[in-house]
Amino acid sequence: MRLIALLLCIMLIASPTFVNAQGKSPEKNVSSNYVKTASQIIGTALVEGQAYEKLEYLSDSIGNRLSGSTQLNQAIEWAMETMKADGLENVHAEKAKVPYWVRGEESAYILTPAKHKLTILGLGGSIGTPSEGVTGEVVVVRNFDELDKLGEQVKGKIVLYNFPMRKDLPSGQAYGEAVRYRSIGAVRAAKYGAIAALVRSVTTVSLNTPHTGAMNYDENTPKIPAAAVTIENAELMQRLFLRGQKITLNLKLGAKILPDAESANVIGEIKGSESPEEIVLVSGHLDSWDVGTGSNDDGAGCVIAMEAVRTIAKLKLRPKRTIRVVLFTNEENGLYGAAAYRDAHKEKFDKHIAAIEADSGGTRPIGFSFKGSDNGFAIIKEISSLLVNLRSDNVERSQGSPGADISVLVNAGVSGLGLRNDSSHYFDIHHTEADTLDKMDKTDLALNVATMAVMVYILADMPESLPR
Amino acid sequence: MRLIALLLCIMLIASPTFVNAQGKSPEKNVSSNYVKTASQIIGTALVEGQAYEKLEYLSDSIGNRLSGSTQLNQAIEWAMETMKADGLENVHAEKAKVPYWVRGEESAYILTPAKHKLTILGLGGSIGTPSEGVTGEVVVVRNFDELDKLGEQVKGKIVLYNFPMRKDLPSGQAYGEAVRYRSIGAVRAAKYGAIAALVRSVTTVSLNTPHTGAMNYDENTPKIPAAAVTIENAELMQRLFLRGQKITLNLKLGAKILPDAESANVIGEIKGSESPEEIVLVSGHLDSWDVGTGSNDDGAGCVIAMEAVRTIAKLKLRPKRTIRVVLFTNEENGLYGAAAYRDAHKEKFDKHIAAIEADSGGTRPIGFSFKGSDNGFAIIKEISSLLVNLRSDNVERSQGSPGADISVLVNAGVSGLGLRNDSSHYFDIHHTEADTLDKMDKTDLALNVATMAVMVYILADMPESLPR
Repeated sequence: MRLIALLLCIMLIASPTFVNAQGKSPEKNVSSNYVKTASQIIGTALVEGQAYEKLEYLSDSIGNRLSGSTQLNQAIEWAMETMKADGLENVHAEKAKVPYWVRGEESAYILTPAKHKLTILGLGGSIGTPSEGVTGEVVVVRNFDELDKLGEQVKGKIVLYNFPMRKDLPSGQAYGEAVRYRSIGAVRAAKYGAIAALVRSVTTVSLNTPHTGAMNYDENTPKIPAAAVTIENAELMQRLFLRGQKITLNLKLGAKILPDAESANVIGEIKGSESPEEIVLVSGHLDSWDVGTGSNDDGAGCVIAMEAVRTIAKLKLRPKRTIRVVLFTNEENGLYGAAAYRDAHKEKFDKHIAAIEADSGGTRPIGFSFKGSDNGFAIIKEISSLLVNLRSDNVERSQGSPGADISVLVNAGVSGLGLRNDSSHYFDIHHTEADTLDKMDKTDLALNVATMAVMVYILADMPESLPR
Repeated sequence: MRLIALLLCIMLIASPTFVNAQGKSPEKNVSSNYVKTASQIIGTALVEGQAYEKLEYLSDSIGNRLSGSTQLNQAIEWAMETMKADGLENVHAEKAKVPYWVRGEESAYILTPAKHKLTILGLGGSIGTPSEGVTGEVVVVRNFDELDKLGEQVKGKIVLYNFPMRKDLPSGQAYGEAVRYRSIGAVRAAKYGAIAALVRSVTTVSLNTPHTGAMNYDENTPKIPAAAVTIENAELMQRLFLRGQKITLNLKLGAKILPDAESANVIGEIKGSESPEEIVLVSGHLDSWDVGTGSNDDGAGCVIAMEAVRTIAKLKLRPKRTIRVVLFTNEENGLYGAAAYRDAHKEKFDKHIAAIEADSGGTRPIGFSFKGSDNGFAIIKEISSLLVNLRSDNVERSQGSPGADISVLVNAGVSGLGLRNDSSHYFDIHHTEADTLDKMDKTDLALNVATMAVMVYILADMPESLPR
């Protein structure tokens, strides 16, 4: 019922009368020419969509998919078979070597002033500890300034960064601010001689929920083990520290860094009818962290990209330019998939008209972020006017690349787009065991597919290529 | 500032003018006689309260406190020392033997159709598995009716009860309905030959959060291991089961049941000036589950009881009857502390005027539940009129005992009261690693103390004893 009601609404709003009322600027022609096609695309996506079923298979019957894992290889096979069955052309895998980090067994205990079992997730890329763990005194800092003030006083100790993710900023911005402690906290603490780094999980809500994610070392600083603790555990240590109680902690990480593994980007296309050498790329990433089932990050983005193109293929719409789905490997801990795509295709980046990434979950779509020219921006907004009654018509400019994988293209001058979603709860489950299918609403997922399909098809078919 | 503003509000509402306006029924005299005292008590509780600091120590410097654990013994020592320092009289411990269950290492994996690591907590009292675990096919049922329909078809299999806690009922009622699957699910499944029982965690929200709690065996049914899984894990298995996919699962529980351990109820008093043999009992329970720090269940209740009586002692108010704090041991998995109190004091239960329990966390207090006579109920409501501006004046009748520990008294005819709190999020963290101090608001905790202290003092001091 909900799908049918939505469909009726969409058909009403996408009527020619409405669009003609929009005015006569050149860009307006783009949307007015595609009213009927957009209706077909959206209707088909909402009535015959299979995004939820695809995501259910990927989540439940394959599971999480860290680079190097058997499950990622299974997902690559599944994606190729599925794209072929969906009627895509030129379906193939393009090999990429990827880092192969395995978590192993982990534990952390506060030993004094009282015994507390902590709930942790080692950070991706962290070295392991000796089997007996590392044991040391904990120093709690709120931020890098506090660390710098302590300086060598943290030598031989374990540094906990208790920087809270802010609730008063847009979630993506708040994430960007807080995630630095996860990314470079270990290096900064190791410079002063710390023996391990702990970071408060990057989230605003917690039911004692640890969040993993990537961390980096640099070549000039000793590597120390690093893990995320929960908000509850971080606040416990903050209170003990403020009371002047000596906190002793044992951290065991069974992490291992194995030789790089074989992996692949999965590619499928609808060949263009007039300018097949011109590419509109639409993407997600198949890999995930090794917790939960990667349903939101980024199973959703993968099935949105796959289904958007299947919808176009099913309608036998053949655009002027080629639409290329790329499901990248290794977004989470290395971006080696994106690098492999760059190495294989950089000679043709001038023919890449646009690169779109879906990597912010599968909740209600709200529009696109855009990196490119003013003229390009105007056209993206114009296309988005067809999405006004889906409320997925909000286009905003992006400072950097609108997606991590497509940054190799955006940095080379390709216009970049990122599908935007209601992200108010995205970071609640990001990189956690709670990133699972039950967070997904079937209708919202279909609305993402509809939104993406309209954007991709028009970019691939409109008379003039999107100007750089 | 917040405390001072609250205090001003309370002084304004507790003015004689207001109370005299209430009418002239006999019970009204109770509250009108105690306006000034209630103001003193509430003002002192809000300005000089130490409930948060007590709870901080119990949570952070002692930690969780399962029966038999070193931490519970530490908590008993701490409670005695603290009550003495608080100026209570006759502070002592009364021994009680308690069950001694230890969790050990635990794990659960779905092996087919895809490998998934599950997040579990063994149920308190469950037997362990062999070291290699038990492995079997999972049968998912929504409720006991579905189990009964399957009957012997679950023989040799693992039964998962996927009964969701309802959101459309008051949380306590919804908990009571759902918790049956945790309590007796193993026995019901074992009767049909199941080899293990899993239960969906009793909660309405989850970030892949498992909730433990007690389970029971009966003597005529084979004991099978039992554990709670998260909502996410339960829904995963439900989906696989509905799709007809065979789920194979390995469950390892390292649980051990050791010989009963020595423990104790902690008791302290303010002796009555006129009828010291008459007792108004106020209680919480010192033990907790072995996850989180038992800050809400029931550290809060303990410090509310302790602080209510300390507030009265500090004001040098000596009531006609004796006020007795009892911090029970072993509420969570046996109620052996309550049984020990009954065995030691049952000859004097006819002199127990009222028994009050605080065991629903430390969020904003909303009033009391009451089990007793109509005349008693009218007086409790009258006393509560002094709490109208704290909004903790809502008294409701209780079907059963208003508290688990005090049920031994209530069943013997003693009037029972339970402090009631805003419980809208109580079960989100109940029996989980997230039951920690950060969930606590200092002002709300002080309001609980104020509410409790007014009720306890007036019950102990009013001219006529509360009628049974």
